[in-house]
Amino acid sequence: MSSSTTNLIALATGVLMALGASFEVNAQSQPLSAQESDPKVMGWMQGFPPPPDKMITQPDSVYFSFPRLRWSVCHLREFLPTEEISRGLGAPVPLGYVSPADFADMRQQIDSLTFMPIDGTAEMTWEESLHANYTDGMLIMHKGEVVYERYFGCLEEDGKHAIMSMTKSITGLLGEILVAEGVLDDTLLVRDVIPEIGDSAFATATVREVMDMTTGVQYSENYSDPNADIWVYSRAASPLPKPEGYDGPDGYWEYLQQVKPEGEHGDAFHYKTINSDMLGWMISRVTGKAVTDLASERLWRRMGAEQDAYQTVDGKGVPFAGGGVTAGLRDLGRLGQLMLNGGEINGTRLFPAEVVEAIAAGGDPSKFAGFPTIPNGSYTSQWWVFHNEHGAYAARGVHGQTIYVDPTAEMVLVRLASFPRAQNGFIDPTSLPAYQAVAEFLMSRD
Amino acid sequence: MSSSTTNLIALATGVLMALGASFEVNAQSQPLSAQESDPKVMGWMQGFPPPPDKMITQPDSVYFSFPRLRWSVCHLREFLPTEEISRGLGAPVPLGYVSPADFADMRQQIDSLTFMPIDGTAEMTWEESLHANYTDGMLIMHKGEVVYERYFGCLEEDGKHAIMSMTKSITGLLGEILVAEGVLDDTLLVRDVIPEIGDSAFATATVREVMDMTTGVQYSENYSDPNADIWVYSRAASPLPKPEGYDGPDGYWEYLQQVKPEGEHGDAFHYKTINSDMLGWMISRVTGKAVTDLASERLWRRMGAEQDAYQTVDGKGVPFAGGGVTAGLRDLGRLGQLMLNGGEINGTRLFPAEVVEAIAAGGDPSKFAGFPTIPNGSYTSQWWVFHNEHGAYAARGVHGQTIYVDPTAEMVLVRLASFPRAQNGFIDPTSLPAYQAVAEFLMSRD
Repeated sequence: MSSSTTNLIALATGVLMALGASFEVNAQSQPLSAQESDPKVMGWMQGFPPPPDKMITQPDSVYFSFPRLRWSVCHLREFLPTEEISRGLGAPVPLGYVSPADFADMRQQIDSLTFMPIDGTAEMTWEESLHANYTDGMLIMHKGEVVYERYFGCLEEDGKHAIMSMTKSITGLLGEILVAEGVLDDTLLVRDVIPEIGDSAFATATVREVMDMTTGVQYSENYSDPNADIWVYSRAASPLPKPEGYDGPDGYWEYLQQVKPEGEHGDAFHYKTINSDMLGWMISRVTGKAVTDLASERLWRRMGAEQDAYQTVDGKGVPFAGGGVTAGLRDLGRLGQLMLNGGEINGTRLFPAEVVEAIAAGGDPSKFAGFPTIPNGSYTSQWWVFHNEHGAYAARGVHGQTIYVDPTAEMVLVRLASFPRAQNGFIDPTSLPAYQAVAEFLMSRD
Repeated sequence: MSSSTTNLIALATGVLMALGASFEVNAQSQPLSAQESDPKVMGWMQGFPPPPDKMITQPDSVYFSFPRLRWSVCHLREFLPTEEISRGLGAPVPLGYVSPADFADMRQQIDSLTFMPIDGTAEMTWEESLHANYTDGMLIMHKGEVVYERYFGCLEEDGKHAIMSMTKSITGLLGEILVAEGVLDDTLLVRDVIPEIGDSAFATATVREVMDMTTGVQYSENYSDPNADIWVYSRAASPLPKPEGYDGPDGYWEYLQQVKPEGEHGDAFHYKTINSDMLGWMISRVTGKAVTDLASERLWRRMGAEQDAYQTVDGKGVPFAGGGVTAGLRDLGRLGQLMLNGGEINGTRLFPAEVVEAIAAGGDPSKFAGFPTIPNGSYTSQWWVFHNEHGAYAARGVHGQTIYVDPTAEMVLVRLASFPRAQNGFIDPTSLPAYQAVAEFLMSRD
């Protein structure tokens, strides 16, 4: 594959970067700190035109490499075709806030909280953790009110940020809602829902196995192998016209039709994004709606959202159900609050409480392995469940995105970030104990 | 130029289609009627996935050809990188409406109004004209209240539609505001504002000549000539990485730096889109803001807009100031009302009244020729001025877009459309007399 072909293929798909494994900084070198790599400090895209060395352009191997990604996470639509997730035309429902005096007090107290990082040797303050994690936005709600809200880097309160694989959790939530409503039968086989899935390995998986990512499907992400599945997937997902002579799959859904088996369905959790695309397809088939339109109808239009969100698409207009969403921090807070409240927000029930109960209960931890920072976890309906004392669960996306729901502390925490490395395993040690510390702090004030 | 290169270049620029001359239906054939070509009737993009013959994909020579364009005018962001024109986070200010009874009555009366088309032989009803013009949305406001509002084709009240060259009028309005505020001196030469314009023919034009499109600049749109300026422009404007070996201009602004002279500055009006891009650049230089951000700050955030708008961009993130905006029908009504009210809306002054006065006064009609349906017109600050008895002026875009302001009738009319042919000269005969008829009808009720 020539480099120009690679560029063409990588360009504008949003897939590689959402999967997050391709454009890492060298793990051996010490990257610029959060403060040093702040996009305003770096001067990216300032000036009309910006100086050539401050310009951020295609392809994604450029625009989504650190430190440029610290700017690009807030600007994906400027590189990629997208579909809107409309909030509708009504007035937003403002989030509740504690009083300004309490807000200032909470800011001071939370910033100075200390905790011991996982496998750490020295305590760290909450505020230090924000920088250690290259945080772009942090929102904490307690009992339905915002107690903490800060913006950094490229993000402002009226801006939006790529949520990467947290997209999966929106897809999964929609799927779980449809299951609860009897529209999607999670005991069916995929081929019963999508007959044209054909001989794909997905054909004989159950809907539930797809939702929980316990399918036995081949999906290699060996970036050094030009025939690795990740490359076939990226070529399929590109919204550009295929190169002359291209005879591979065109679009997410054609890709899914040719997936090969690997292992047995139901045996174990394997984090493979193509499950989310498979779920997205089934959702669209049973509802007759794109996942963007469904997310708008079921969530964004009804939860008092203050901004539209958007989602990247393939060359056939199919939204990237595994990683394509960009949204505002407070709207993600609304989504978390909706989960915490068991499907209700602003006095309105949007979906049955059993939807949240099913997600919060988690999947089978015995099938879950390989995530050292989540030793007792599970994954169900595209949500991560910690099975900790607080019953916490989360949406998670590479480079540090999370919606973390702690039902015991009645806390919703949303972090948007642009951590240099694309594995949350590097971020969790200074994040998960910090969330626990703030949860305990909030409970101590009750 | 190979066909694949052409595809690559034409792809995703939005330029060719915004200029509107490339993908016309055969003028000799009778295209499908508005009803026959309704996207819902055609079945475009219905199903998950749609049948192959109902799929609309890249490149723009496909997705923006009639009848597909009737779907695509509402879906440009799904093909192109874009920047948001944010409405902000507050509550929209709903438009005023006449009472439901009056609204129903007005609908009936306006639909049955008759008028004689320009050079016509038989009268036509208003409602017939809507179909003759492939109308997607029609909004009429009288004395600040909506008296008529209908949606067709791909457009719904919460949807958005490409406004094509009406984008120029937003750019021009922003320019005129900056002139009124003393931020942009329209007597300066372009080279005084943008020194790096270099030896471009634009260098010695005044800002005012750029705003009024009376510059003497070469810009050929002979689509059959592969070396025509339009192709160089399209290649420059494409947001994709340039093909290997490409050594032409990259982006709108590099294109402007190499424009050659043709005729004398100030002699005559020539409708050439590159003037709008030149104006956009100067606006960004003197304000330090992208035209998207400025349109947000000065217009969308302050006029009570109910939807964000968006604008396509080149490969360096520069918004297409000559044609890239997509917006909602009612927000364009707010923009028209802002013009009618001399810069005020919802009790707030957004810009000095002299801005509207300058636009409404028009340019020099003696420099204006070549538009048979606008025999006594002029063009100033990127607005079309009719110099008719009502003092009407308009933003206009190919395929039938208009914001038509009639100060005498206190009427604002917005039409969004997807007329098969890309010249408003074909649409004006059944539009301009219809607007006059409805204006007179409204005045007769005062």
